[in-house]
Amino acid sequence: MKLWQKEGFGAEPSEAAAKIERFTVGRDREMDVYLAPFDVLGNLAHAVMLETIGLLTADDLAQLRAELKTIYADIEAGNFTIEDGIEDVHSQVELMLTRKLGDIGKKIHSGRSRNDQVLVDLKLYTRAQLWTVAEATRMVFDQLIARSEQHKHDLLPGYTHLQIAMPSSFGLWFGAYAEALADDMLTLQTAFRLANRNPLGSGAGYGSSFPLNRTLTTQLLGFEGMHVNVVYAQMSRGKTEQTALNAIAAIAATVSRLAMDICLYNSQNFGFLTLPDALTTGSSIMPHKKNPDVAELLRAKSNRLKALPMEITMVMSNLPSGYHRDMQILKEVLMPAFDEILDCLQILAFTLENIQVKPNLLADEKYDLLFSVERVNELVLQGVPFREAYRIVGKEINEGSYKASRELKHSHEGSIGNPGNELIVQQMDAAMAGFGIDQIRQATAALLA
Amino acid sequence: MKLWQKEGFGAEPSEAAAKIERFTVGRDREMDVYLAPFDVLGNLAHAVMLETIGLLTADDLAQLRAELKTIYADIEAGNFTIEDGIEDVHSQVELMLTRKLGDIGKKIHSGRSRNDQVLVDLKLYTRAQLWTVAEATRMVFDQLIARSEQHKHDLLPGYTHLQIAMPSSFGLWFGAYAEALADDMLTLQTAFRLANRNPLGSGAGYGSSFPLNRTLTTQLLGFEGMHVNVVYAQMSRGKTEQTALNAIAAIAATVSRLAMDICLYNSQNFGFLTLPDALTTGSSIMPHKKNPDVAELLRAKSNRLKALPMEITMVMSNLPSGYHRDMQILKEVLMPAFDEILDCLQILAFTLENIQVKPNLLADEKYDLLFSVERVNELVLQGVPFREAYRIVGKEINEGSYKASRELKHSHEGSIGNPGNELIVQQMDAAMAGFGIDQIRQATAALLA
Amino acid sequence: MKLWQKEGFGAEPSEAAAKIERFTVGRDREMDVYLAPFDVLGNLAHAVMLETIGLLTADDLAQLRAELKTIYADIEAGNFTIEDGIEDVHSQVELMLTRKLGDIGKKIHSGRSRNDQVLVDLKLYTRAQLWTVAEATRMVFDQLIARSEQHKHDLLPGYTHLQIAMPSSFGLWFGAYAEALADDMLTLQTAFRLANRNPLGSGAGYGSSFPLNRTLTTQLLGFEGMHVNVVYAQMSRGKTEQTALNAIAAIAATVSRLAMDICLYNSQNFGFLTLPDALTTGSSIMPHKKNPDVAELLRAKSNRLKALPMEITMVMSNLPSGYHRDMQILKEVLMPAFDEILDCLQILAFTLENIQVKPNLLADEKYDLLFSVERVNELVLQGVPFREAYRIVGKEINEGSYKASRELKHSHEGSIGNPGNELIVQQMDAAMAGFGIDQIRQATAALLA
Amino acid sequence: MKLWQKEGFGAEPSEAAAKIERFTVGRDREMDVYLAPFDVLGNLAHAVMLETIGLLTADDLAQLRAELKTIYADIEAGNFTIEDGIEDVHSQVELMLTRKLGDIGKKIHSGRSRNDQVLVDLKLYTRAQLWTVAEATRMVFDQLIARSEQHKHDLLPGYTHLQIAMPSSFGLWFGAYAEALADDMLTLQTAFRLANRNPLGSGAGYGSSFPLNRTLTTQLLGFEGMHVNVVYAQMSRGKTEQTALNAIAAIAATVSRLAMDICLYNSQNFGFLTLPDALTTGSSIMPHKKNPDVAELLRAKSNRLKALPMEITMVMSNLPSGYHRDMQILKEVLMPAFDEILDCLQILAFTLENIQVKPNLLADEKYDLLFSVERVNELVLQGVPFREAYRIVGKEINEGSYKASRELKHSHEGSIGNPGNELIVQQMDAAMAGFGIDQIRQATAALLA
Repeated sequence: MKLWQKEGFGAEPSEAAAKIERFTVGRDREMDVYLAPFDVLGNLAHAVMLETIGLLTADDLAQLRAELKTIYADIEAGNFTIEDGIEDVHSQVELMLTRKLGDIGKKIHSGRSRNDQVLVDLKLYTRAQLWTVAEATRMVFDQLIARSEQHKHDLLPGYTHLQIAMPSSFGLWFGAYAEALADDMLTLQTAFRLANRNPLGSGAGYGSSFPLNRTLTTQLLGFEGMHVNVVYAQMSRGKTEQTALNAIAAIAATVSRLAMDICLYNSQNFGFLTLPDALTTGSSIMPHKKNPDVAELLRAKSNRLKALPMEITMVMSNLPSGYHRDMQILKEVLMPAFDEILDCLQILAFTLENIQVKPNLLADEKYDLLFSVERVNELVLQGVPFREAYRIVGKEINEGSYKASRELKHSHEGSIGNPGNELIVQQMDAAMAGFGIDQIRQATAALLA
Repeated sequence: MKLWQKEGFGAEPSEAAAKIERFTVGRDREMDVYLAPFDVLGNLAHAVMLETIGLLTADDLAQLRAELKTIYADIEAGNFTIEDGIEDVHSQVELMLTRKLGDIGKKIHSGRSRNDQVLVDLKLYTRAQLWTVAEATRMVFDQLIARSEQHKHDLLPGYTHLQIAMPSSFGLWFGAYAEALADDMLTLQTAFRLANRNPLGSGAGYGSSFPLNRTLTTQLLGFEGMHVNVVYAQMSRGKTEQTALNAIAAIAATVSRLAMDICLYNSQNFGFLTLPDALTTGSSIMPHKKNPDVAELLRAKSNRLKALPMEITMVMSNLPSGYHRDMQILKEVLMPAFDEILDCLQILAFTLENIQVKPNLLADEKYDLLFSVERVNELVLQGVPFREAYRIVGKEINEGSYKASRELKHSHEGSIGNPGNELIVQQMDAAMAGFGIDQIRQATAALLA
Repeated sequence: MKLWQKEGFGAEPSEAAAKIERFTVGRDREMDVYLAPFDVLGNLAHAVMLETIGLLTADDLAQLRAELKTIYADIEAGNFTIEDGIEDVHSQVELMLTRKLGDIGKKIHSGRSRNDQVLVDLKLYTRAQLWTVAEATRMVFDQLIARSEQHKHDLLPGYTHLQIAMPSSFGLWFGAYAEALADDMLTLQTAFRLANRNPLGSGAGYGSSFPLNRTLTTQLLGFEGMHVNVVYAQMSRGKTEQTALNAIAAIAATVSRLAMDICLYNSQNFGFLTLPDALTTGSSIMPHKKNPDVAELLRAKSNRLKALPMEITMVMSNLPSGYHRDMQILKEVLMPAFDEILDCLQILAFTLENIQVKPNLLADEKYDLLFSVERVNELVLQGVPFREAYRIVGKEINEGSYKASRELKHSHEGSIGNPGNELIVQQMDAAMAGFGIDQIRQATAALLA
Repeated sequence: MKLWQKEGFGAEPSEAAAKIERFTVGRDREMDVYLAPFDVLGNLAHAVMLETIGLLTADDLAQLRAELKTIYADIEAGNFTIEDGIEDVHSQVELMLTRKLGDIGKKIHSGRSRNDQVLVDLKLYTRAQLWTVAEATRMVFDQLIARSEQHKHDLLPGYTHLQIAMPSSFGLWFGAYAEALADDMLTLQTAFRLANRNPLGSGAGYGSSFPLNRTLTTQLLGFEGMHVNVVYAQMSRGKTEQTALNAIAAIAATVSRLAMDICLYNSQNFGFLTLPDALTTGSSIMPHKKNPDVAELLRAKSNRLKALPMEITMVMSNLPSGYHRDMQILKEVLMPAFDEILDCLQILAFTLENIQVKPNLLADEKYDLLFSVERVNELVLQGVPFREAYRIVGKEINEGSYKASRELKHSHEGSIGNPGNELIVQQMDAAMAGFGIDQIRQATAALLA
């Protein structure tokens, strides 16, 4: 058992300094690589604006733009790294500018604090990632709709209380999860809108005495609007992450529930689905096993994602207004969550594409009772009041005289005979349109032109 | 120490039955009183629809409408109770109908399950409560904007890291929380939209073989749309509550942070605020104390609300699709949360109205350093590159030659001199318009006409 | 839709005062009734101690003891209430003393603050409730052991990944949950020990200038030890509740998992168990249903309990040291949780007593593959290396030549043939002995003598 | 904005396979390096036992022991890696054995499943890490006690409700956190005891038909006892991690609260503490700032740790009994948490060693009111009933006639004059003795001898 070395710390002042630096930098350098392209965009917009208020000359701006575009191209090409000894992405970009442009590189920090620089990078990053999640969600959605249409007529036992209840269909089952994602898209849209606000110009949370033009940077970066109040702009940190993680958690909740269904339906005791070999694994001691490990990990990973909003809440709770270094930790919660949900959605899309549905499930006499409500409704249509019909069929079941007719007449909106997928697609389309992604793309393209 | 009686249970079968009933009914009767008016609305819409598809005669419908309107009036007048021995509000309403109308009262349950009846009640209830929260939030918002305008010129030390940082103002401080609420309103709107979907007609989650017209009930109840897929309609339970509680938690996070600021600023070591006697209490042993108990309870109660979404997540996690009785417990989490947030918002509005702001805070020389950035910017405007100016002022401070000019020139959007409250009010107005409350009111009025 | 009345608040100052009082008192009066007997015990110990340091005369003490014992008897008899206008149990008891004894009643508050008075009451209450939970847990444990012994030879399919895996038994299944509770008892014991510390004498968190004898009150109240440092005594609030709720959550996790198994095994697709009618309910539209509502509510209620520790964490997070009124809210989280877990344990004991186990489950050929490892081990014992034997049996299964021998030879500790319940009972006995309940009962009896 | 590539997946089957493998392996290879020494210990104990029941020859055992000890030495020397293409540590060790020993290397897997192999590794790892946390906690504790003794007579304002309340001291403040850690050590001990149970022999959760001697492996690995029931052994996964993270969270709660105090006391408005330059950072725009970033990160990181137990709860909720692949994810939650808490404790110890305390704080007249209770008690000792004395002093304060005597006479256990650190050290010693670490070290040494 390796002992924890208390002596190791502080024996040499330099050693203590190194440990403290490691502690304070944390995973920042790793996280910050994600922010690089957005830092360049923020710099570009800030520089353009500074020139309009006379804090940069036209020539300063031209040089800065050229250099920033070069850095952006490097990032796109995968040639950007944070050098050893440089604490974060913001310092790295500033260093690259001053190396090439000297004092002009320093002037770009006028009217800006590290705080609003980080904030604008995070907003741009979060906005971009939330859209990526929206696209990945849409891909899963499309797959669900396709499978729902394909299996519209393949019946499935419907359960309540895990008890055999009424007839359902694979069409309804796949379609239900599609509609769940359409609702989740609304939550995602709200998170996107909170990320789509410009904090640039709020400085360290108390603004600047320079006559900044925040409306201009808002337009340049394609933001829907501005975090107006500078104190609030700073306070939006935490809220943005919380809302983004709540949206990720909403999608994760849909994913994990679907994964639970898959694991259950794949059990020999249900036997409704077959998973391809690529999605199952064997056992180290049981030669007959084909375990749904991929679906289980989908379930576990998405369940874990559901707990992450609480981490943000916990870090931010009872912090008075004003910036605190605590907020750095939020990046370590948010950023890996995007990777995780995107992984899950990708694997889920593949799973849905390759899952096989068992036909004729309801032929098994175990499922006869699924049709008891049909018998009740038959009596009701003959004029028997519902409560009476219910009693009659209950009696038939107990006496063994009950016969399942197995003829299904469900025709209303959203039912077996009419799953309404076209309405669900409309809902999804409307939710995605609300992101306003085209306007953002145009603004970004213009800034980089 | 009172021993827990293991003998007490099951000695008599009837005793066991009573305990099990108490366990299963839980707080349902208490919770269900809140649902009463919405159960009547749901019954009305269902009845109207049933008549259009021939499951009720015109005369049946007329009798049912008349009776349901009478019950609604009783509820409004506070004359509705769930009788002893009746398990929930749905049974109570059905009982009242059958008492008066006999078999006609029973026919209203055709094409409906207890599950979609509960669901539609919960949707209508949640929709109504979320709007009430929106209105209460707006009242706090208006108070914050008013105080922000009133104290636009009253300066306040701005902190970062709890260290004296830069000049701020009470105008910015109040305004920041107003803008936070405008953003929270977007989250509330999303929760409202998820609640504003019609599940009626989904039965027990597998629809009905009757030719229900779900589009009609959607219109009659003023829903924005329908939970199309019947399996999803049932699955929306949990998601609706989760989203509603996330929205409540968002508002609670704003409230608790404001309450933390109030508690801190009320400490003698800050001394920025004075609370009226009505909002403070004394100590049982320290005769000099005036404690901000009300603000502390605001903080604690809203912090607790922030944990509630996790209760929903926990109850719903890893439940396969299809109804489970577990979902009953969601009511016990959601319903008291509405009361709690409304209480908090009401008390907060009163607090904000009565809080007194200390004038001339920055006259204290302790706050001289707040103006160091102004000095830096002064040098920048004289042509000194930012990083150089920063070094010069740092040197002045260390050498004692630094002098605070205390002249503030902040003019950009959202800064001390231009807090931008009118923009924030626009954001709030837009967020509230998105609820579409007028359409709902018209539909409800028409149904009760 | 009932509008929330913003006008209602503050129209009359008295009305505002009433609302604020309701807000600050909250559910305190309701919660405090639970504390009444413990408040009397705390008063008794404090009074006895005050007499030893000369702050009460022997006669004062005699009168106070007599009166306190009368109040205790009233509480035991159910004759104690907190009168209208009295804010909490502590004021009520003090009022009753001063009504009878005049100035002597006032003297008992010497050397004590409301804070340490509340704290000692809460410690005594929590200690008592945790023991009650221990006893209720033991009752469920005994039931599980009994059923395990009864069904030692009734085989059950064992699952991994929800896939049919290897033979198990009802003996193992019941026994596993018993052992889980024995481990949970260790967590409960720790919570009990943290509650079993004396905070009396810590005043408002800064002690007293009176020469209190805290060692004496520690002995009188039967505490295992003292919260020594007075600042820490106050800080233990939150930690005590958190630890208690973590223990409740641990038991709840065992309960909810067992309930999930019951719901699953009760599904027609598993069909391992039968629940008595008293524990199932029917459906409003499906005449054939027998739903395991009680098990589902056990699952949901215990799942909800698992989220409660987070509420305490959230309320306490980032509060600086020293008392804050926020802590009052902790009572509203903790106290109902005791009722809920006790309800769950009682209902679970009844469920376990009445559940019926299906015999001969493994006769179904679906379960043949359960025995594949037995075949592998057979080959290993014949000298085939494990990895080779595994490959051979896999081939037999694929080629259809595999035959299940169904003879089980599991004999090691904890296996089907040797479930080891006697060892598990020893673990439980040891865990419960660690509470030291006898010493507490003796001290309490002496104080009340 | 980089588009997420939906085409990329599945274009080539091999590409899909690679992505699925990445998804299922996850961070396992990274996590598993931590498990390597414990996997060797588990292998050693299993091999020794197999020989006693005839499944290995004496010669097999001798060769396996020699080789396993070589691997252990390699791990200790930092020369162990999991090779590319090898999925986890268990496969790597087995591969190394079979490379050297051929069939003998394969025989060690007899009577064991991957599941109980992982479980025993995790138990040994968790047990070791929890002890490391105990030692690190003790180091912080010792520092707190030392500073408490050093500053016994340095007074500090005591606050309640963040209001100036009564005199306190740095002696009490440091000592309070020491005592908090002594209580946390009890929670840690419970987690340790749950980790200190032998699951080996439970196979995949249903035991083995080999006549394993689990009592022997329990002794060889120095476990306090055995998870008896094989089904429970598997179910202990999740519970072990949950309890360990609850213990880490308890310590983190103490750390974060202390960090909050440090941040607050370091604010210019309190000014009770000075932090060395090594623990503060400047601002990019405010030349006068010395921000307590290290304390803020201590607070944030430990607050985040407090949310982690919920991740375990979420992943495990409502999983039926039996192994599920979901449990793999638990490692990703637990293992980094150990690193994080150890980092925090190390940095905290350094902080506590280097923090400077401001002398004579109470000389400031702002703190006169701290002594009002002393005045009240003075009157009480003169015979005035407490409630009367309280009223008199309140009147003196309001009329301006109140004079603070500033003489402190606190002498009781745990008060300013008698902080009782020796009692607190006794509590800590007792809590640590309960781990029984010596017995474990002896067993491990014997196994490796």
